[in-house]
Amino acid sequence: MVEGVHFRRADGPLEDVGHKALAVNLSDLAAMGARPGWFVCALAAPSLDAAEVRALARGMARLARRFRVDLVGGNVSRARELSLTVTAFGELTGRAPLLRSGGRPGDLLYVSGTLGGARLGLLSLTGRLGAGRSVRAERRQRRPEPRVRLGRLAAAHASAAIDLSDGLTRDLGHLLAASRVGAELEADRIPVDPEVVRAFGRTGRALRTALVGGEDYELLLAVPPARAGGFERACARAGERVTRIGRLRRGRELRVLDALGRLGPPPGGGFEHFGGRGRGR
Amino acid sequence: MVEGVHFRRADGPLEDVGHKALAVNLSDLAAMGARPGWFVCALAAPSLDAAEVRALARGMARLARRFRVDLVGGNVSRARELSLTVTAFGELTGRAPLLRSGGRPGDLLYVSGTLGGARLGLLSLTGRLGAGRSVRAERRQRRPEPRVRLGRLAAAHASAAIDLSDGLTRDLGHLLAASRVGAELEADRIPVDPEVVRAFGRTGRALRTALVGGEDYELLLAVPPARAGGFERACARAGERVTRIGRLRRGRELRVLDALGRLGPPPGGGFEHFGGRGRGR
Repeated sequence: MVEGVHFRRADGPLEDVGHKALAVNLSDLAAMGARPGWFVCALAAPSLDAAEVRALARGMARLARRFRVDLVGGNVSRARELSLTVTAFGELTGRAPLLRSGGRPGDLLYVSGTLGGARLGLLSLTGRLGAGRSVRAERRQRRPEPRVRLGRLAAAHASAAIDLSDGLTRDLGHLLAASRVGAELEADRIPVDPEVVRAFGRTGRALRTALVGGEDYELLLAVPPARAGGFERACARAGERVTRIGRLRRGRELRVLDALGRLGPPPGGGFEHFGGRGRGR
Repeated sequence: MVEGVHFRRADGPLEDVGHKALAVNLSDLAAMGARPGWFVCALAAPSLDAAEVRALARGMARLARRFRVDLVGGNVSRARELSLTVTAFGELTGRAPLLRSGGRPGDLLYVSGTLGGARLGLLSLTGRLGAGRSVRAERRQRRPEPRVRLGRLAAAHASAAIDLSDGLTRDLGHLLAASRVGAELEADRIPVDPEVVRAFGRTGRALRTALVGGEDYELLLAVPPARAGGFERACARAGERVTRIGRLRRGRELRVLDALGRLGPPPGGGFEHFGGRGRGR
């Protein structure tokens, strides 16, 4: 989490930065079906301001307590800009990890929660929503919720998983490349964040925001058809929202089935870590 | 390892930066008596230059192969300055870790290798040696050698350990605070780096450089007197150079016994992560 790249101080309290730095790491553990165990944190800053460090620590500590992870070490360093580098560790307790590479043609694709909210929040924070702002979407952007419980549940059913940091189509692309398969998404089934629908209506822009938005930190899961029923029932029992949005296919292509039944390529975009396009920060 | 704080590009090849980023982490593992296992690396940079990334990776890979540690993950991010954040993992294989807190009054203090060279190297790199330069000391500064084998050997004998990143007196201070003891160092016994002696003669400046210089990444070990003989023999067999430089005492004070047999406070200084004094970078 680098100031000026992943967050701006003006956008809100540093608690949120502490929260997010840990949350995105717990999200990675969730995507592997692991139980979070502990973490280390490297803090770099131009100077050590006690109030700032406390704020960062508070945000991190609150989330750490919820998931019972301990901070077991770290480092501090001077640097020109504020940054937090977190490394989190988890345990699999005898189960094999969920990987991006386990998907097979025919597996059903599920996504947790709703999509596009974090991107809307970024637009709101950076004044690109025009006059409007969305406090809920900004919160979504700044305080992602790692899907740890769902990840552990999915480990018993899914063949492959990834968490959605760069955007659905881009992260699905990572999963497809690792699994050496293609996929078909059904546009009508994508769970667009209600705040996105409120801001953009039921338009192509809303759908694109959900497909390429990034930073939702939901889980994308591939589940073999024979296990889909059990998986959906387990999610319902646990109160974990998942939506079936498509399936894996032979080949290497990703295609989107639109509302009129036409198959086409997905919209471009998504987060480029060093790119010109993308989130535009 | 942050550009402009821990290294300057003008000072030498980025291979050395990759080497050092991993080496200082292996040094931490060595100080706990652990066998290095694997590591993760977060790279932040203004832009991703393939030649630069390859150079960093080469330096890291060469050291990683020597110690049989694998890079198992990491992150890349945009940032205003180049930095590498490494987290290394080790295994203790049934033994308790060596900690800073295990020292007891009467334990003998040993230090590996020689001291002050890295500080001399920094002075040389930053043009503060006058006309002279010391290529050897610069190498010492830029390519520290983690004392992994000594650390594993020491785990069977020592009561406490720390690696010397901030300077002997400062890091000894950390060990004393954690062990709740004091110590007496014998100035005559401090193994001053021969390059430091060459640069400064056998002067107070040479001794101060060895005592507060920092970044030598040698190990400081406390060994109970009953185990000192066995420890020294084991080091001799393994070809690991260690020098007895003092002992732990009751109380909380650190005192230095000078060549005339006078006890006094240690010289001030050492690396302050956010300080004005210290290394002066």
